Amino acid sequence: MKAAGDAAVLGPTLHAANECVTILNQMVQYTQARLDVSFAALSDATRRGVLEQLGRGDASITDLAEKFHMTLTGMKKHVGVLEQAGLVRTEKVGRVRTCKLGPRRLQEETAWLERYRQLWDARFDELEKVVEELKRKEKVDGRKKRD
Amino acid sequence: MKAAGDAAVLGPTLHAANECVTILNQMVQYTQARLDVSFAALSDATRRGVLEQLGRGDASITDLAEKFHMTLTGMKKHVGVLEQAGLVRTEKVGRVRTCKLGPRRLQEETAWLERYRQLWDARFDELEKVVEELKRKEKVDGRKKRD
Repeated sequence: MKAAGDAAVLGPTLHAANECVTILNQMVQYTQARLDVSFAALSDATRRGVLEQLGRGDASITDLAEKFHMTLTGMKKHVGVLEQAGLVRTEKVGRVRTCKLGPRRLQEETAWLERYRQLWDARFDELEKVVEELKRKEKVDGRKKRD
Repeated sequence: MKAAGDAAVLGPTLHAANECVTILNQMVQYTQARLDVSFAALSDATRRGVLEQLGRGDASITDLAEKFHMTLTGMKKHVGVLEQAGLVRTEKVGRVRTCKLGPRRLQEETAWLERYRQLWDARFDELEKVVEELKRKEKVDGRKKRD
């Protein structure tokens, strides 16, 4: 009876644990997909320029096209990429489409870069120690040979 | 004679100023091109994963291909993109190509994101103030109408 009771308890617990892992995996995949899209959006000097410009004030597609010496079609494409990444919001009032900064503050992207720099620093500190250790040994060996 | 003397001084000065502007422009373009390449390199979950992995220790292309369930050709392409961005260095010893973290610490990229977040915060603080001002006015108007 005890084994059956255990199974009755363990079954739902295992099921819940599996569900939890599935949700966590989906969350990780979702964040990764978001990072893919936003880093790709940032990989163009004009698009970064548009974000900086909108940081100073809203602007129409026409304003942006003029500012960046680009055709309307070209600018619409860039704004579309930024909009898909959640970095820009657009609003059409009458015949004018106004662009504003979007809801994303690029926190996850900054966090990723911060983590990378920590890894990088730790890795190079480690290598430096190895090099110093090698130098120290070389010195000792050199002295021994001279003696 | 004075005018001729001025021209003799101004000529080289203007020339130097122009040279300086040209150099500064080239520097800006160079940084922009580097940001394009590195953000594009970071826009792929596998490539970010490879950087994290190399942050923990050097690895061969074969190790990385296995770790990320990928063909050797696929992994070589990803490593090539990272290498071009200065984020990975590879070294061939015998038949094994070892990958290590490259010289770039992504400082310019982090700086860009930091600047963007400051612009974003300032922009949204500004909008918040406008909204609060509108709310305040609405309240005052509402009171006036009731009076």
